[in-house]
Amino acid sequence: MEFTRNNSDKLIEEILQSYQDHPESTRFSGKNILNRELLIDILYKIREILFPGFYDKNRVRAEYARYLVGEKIEFIQYNLTKQVSIALGTQDLCEECPRSVLMHKAETIVDEFLKQIPALREYLATDVQAAFDGDPAAYSTDEIILSYPGLMAITTYRIAHELWRRQVPLIPRILSEHAHSLTGIDIHPGATIGRYFFIDHGTGIVIGETTEIGDNVKIYQGVTLGGLSTRKGQGLKGVKRHPTLGNHVTVYSGTTVLGGETIIGDNVTIGGNTFVIHSIPADTRVSARPPELELSSGLKEDYGDVID
Amino acid sequence: MEFTRNNSDKLIEEILQSYQDHPESTRFSGKNILNRELLIDILYKIREILFPGFYDKNRVRAEYARYLVGEKIEFIQYNLTKQVSIALGTQDLCEECPRSVLMHKAETIVDEFLKQIPALREYLATDVQAAFDGDPAAYSTDEIILSYPGLMAITTYRIAHELWRRQVPLIPRILSEHAHSLTGIDIHPGATIGRYFFIDHGTGIVIGETTEIGDNVKIYQGVTLGGLSTRKGQGLKGVKRHPTLGNHVTVYSGTTVLGGETIIGDNVTIGGNTFVIHSIPADTRVSARPPELELSSGLKEDYGDVID
Amino acid sequence: MEFTRNNSDKLIEEILQSYQDHPESTRFSGKNILNRELLIDILYKIREILFPGFYDKNRVRAEYARYLVGEKIEFIQYNLTKQVSIALGTQDLCEECPRSVLMHKAETIVDEFLKQIPALREYLATDVQAAFDGDPAAYSTDEIILSYPGLMAITTYRIAHELWRRQVPLIPRILSEHAHSLTGIDIHPGATIGRYFFIDHGTGIVIGETTEIGDNVKIYQGVTLGGLSTRKGQGLKGVKRHPTLGNHVTVYSGTTVLGGETIIGDNVTIGGNTFVIHSIPADTRVSARPPELELSSGLKEDYGDVID
Repeated sequence: MEFTRNNSDKLIEEILQSYQDHPESTRFSGKNILNRELLIDILYKIREILFPGFYDKNRVRAEYARYLVGEKIEFIQYNLTKQVSIALGTQDLCEECPRSVLMHKAETIVDEFLKQIPALREYLATDVQAAFDGDPAAYSTDEIILSYPGLMAITTYRIAHELWRRQVPLIPRILSEHAHSLTGIDIHPGATIGRYFFIDHGTGIVIGETTEIGDNVKIYQGVTLGGLSTRKGQGLKGVKRHPTLGNHVTVYSGTTVLGGETIIGDNVTIGGNTFVIHSIPADTRVSARPPELELSSGLKEDYGDVID
Repeated sequence: MEFTRNNSDKLIEEILQSYQDHPESTRFSGKNILNRELLIDILYKIREILFPGFYDKNRVRAEYARYLVGEKIEFIQYNLTKQVSIALGTQDLCEECPRSVLMHKAETIVDEFLKQIPALREYLATDVQAAFDGDPAAYSTDEIILSYPGLMAITTYRIAHELWRRQVPLIPRILSEHAHSLTGIDIHPGATIGRYFFIDHGTGIVIGETTEIGDNVKIYQGVTLGGLSTRKGQGLKGVKRHPTLGNHVTVYSGTTVLGGETIIGDNVTIGGNTFVIHSIPADTRVSARPPELELSSGLKEDYGDVID
Repeated sequence: MEFTRNNSDKLIEEILQSYQDHPESTRFSGKNILNRELLIDILYKIREILFPGFYDKNRVRAEYARYLVGEKIEFIQYNLTKQVSIALGTQDLCEECPRSVLMHKAETIVDEFLKQIPALREYLATDVQAAFDGDPAAYSTDEIILSYPGLMAITTYRIAHELWRRQVPLIPRILSEHAHSLTGIDIHPGATIGRYFFIDHGTGIVIGETTEIGDNVKIYQGVTLGGLSTRKGQGLKGVKRHPTLGNHVTVYSGTTVLGGETIIGDNVTIGGNTFVIHSIPADTRVSARPPELELSSGLKEDYGDVID
């Protein structure tokens, strides 16, 4: 038996060479790396604590709740602390931090995060109520908790935001992009969102990093709360570039609201398919004039068919 | 060895307290709960029966088809009946129903559902044909069945609708939200949709609960068939609030059609990015006038750049 | 013990009958069938080679890179070759091809594909850089590689396009629809896309089969680069029906650009929510005039509320 070289050798050498040529898309290190699957597991465990009995595989009885919660807290504490310490280790300023310092910082962050669970439940109970009050297609609050993608996105946002506030790198975005992938709803973990927040349908929603949203706000599918600026890219890091929405604001489907200085007052309703780049005073309704439609016989072809 | 209390005890007590404070987002009960993963498995088994040989892991030969179908029917009958009985048990009116009554009702529903499989295949064969006829990018009907998200969404809708018609709570919506998550296409299981239905691309489509759609209808990405009303939320429960589309209607991408009294006649084509809140007579084409565009040199900044 | 018939027998016979009635949605054959799950595994292995150390479960050290790459190449070579040979076997012209011919053709294709890995890394390094330069919300290139759905979609497109160019049936579309499902970004594997391509947010983007895109192009959520024609469906097979974009073009969210003869020149910026069906000369900015908005008191109801 001879362990001859095979005809993939040249290919493998070329790939290794390309790793040297492009170190920025190569990450070799003796350091541990974030475990995305584990982070998603942690997200679901947190969600099970937040809504006990809804997402569990088996029935959950009140007399055993203490043990179920205890087991999940233990899992989260152990695993999230480790992941947070790995994430902290990726920051430039900590390139040389000893591991024990990172672990200690991670423990503190996770402890603080876990203490927020009752407050998160307060917020999420208002979100469930807002969905039920706002959607005639909702038959029960159970249906909302079991199946509404908007609630999944908001739950993930509220969890990710708590980690974001504590300067955890990478993990908040990994969690929010997981929810984005499942729901088509892209809420940056840096956004600030009040109580009774309702997202209906939700696919295509984008809520940018520096957006501020008050209480009792409703957002429909395809809405962008986005950035607007004459400057470019990384030059805008940290600048407030996304809009501010007051309380009791409703934004219907397909509408775009842009700009860090765009302030939407309390009790404003913005109609669908509207493009907003200026502030709107409180207590007003805004809508684009519905476009003039052209009706013509089926034979006349104005600009052809849109086909694929 | 001593089983001392640990420093999570206070946290766990606070979480338990929050369960008492917000019972509406807490579900402790001796009752069994719906198993979402099992429901998704059942959905895929049904799909394997509907399109034999396309989604199976191994090759399927005609001479063994009887056994493969039989095994899948057995799986579905056993598991779906149990899940339906659990779902029926969540309805308020059945809070006190004995389990045997729920099981009997569930058996009847699942038997009726399974008898619809040949009829579902009739419908779905027309949907596959419509996709092939309508999309120049389709190279074969196999490609459509294997990879088109529109067909996944329509298949799931047609399955969920059969359960919805039989008043099964929660499960139809769980199935349709699974397809929504995979495809970005949100078809409420309550909608009524005819033969030869084609969805292209599909991300961002919303089809509301009381929508009615005829035969040979084509819908593109980002289309909303939605509700419109001056009344609010739960007050509209059960009211017809989404549009009616006739036969041979095409709605291009990004268009919004709203309202329960909005009737789109036969052979109507609605262009892209159009906002429709009134009925349209048969045999007409409707389009928004393309917006006047402003061309300017790259240096003039009209309303700045939209950036993130 | 008696193996009696059960009451599902009639149902099963009816289903088998429906298989005979609709052979086009039935695929019984002694041939092997494509394994979608395995294809997705292969996609992720390729991605791990393209961005080593980012998506692995364990840390990856440079001194072991050769072995990790070798193991993954071996996995891809073996499995992808088999899947490609199955895909080639589905083509009408090869109905009678002997298996050895298909295997040989598949081996050649996979060898050629694997040789493209260093070139793919060149392209993808430019895409990562474009995302970092273009997005003020990006904190590091690591964040982009670990969490940006746009990069996932582009990576999958670049892989699928290499198979598409070599006339592999079905598989490129299965891969691109997987990315579409995860990201809401639908890039047809037939499209041609240059370097430094950046997709932000991305949900709802559609890029059609015959689209051509230059270098340094940025596309935001909800953009369609689609077809436009007065002819229908399969009659357009192979015709150039999607637009051409030059270099340094930016298209903001919700905009639709249609037509095979629509050419967008170099250095063009197209604003959000714009509908473009004609060519645009180089070095210009184009935007729809923001719609005139109607502000009214909260009590006046112009066209009611859009509700669900």
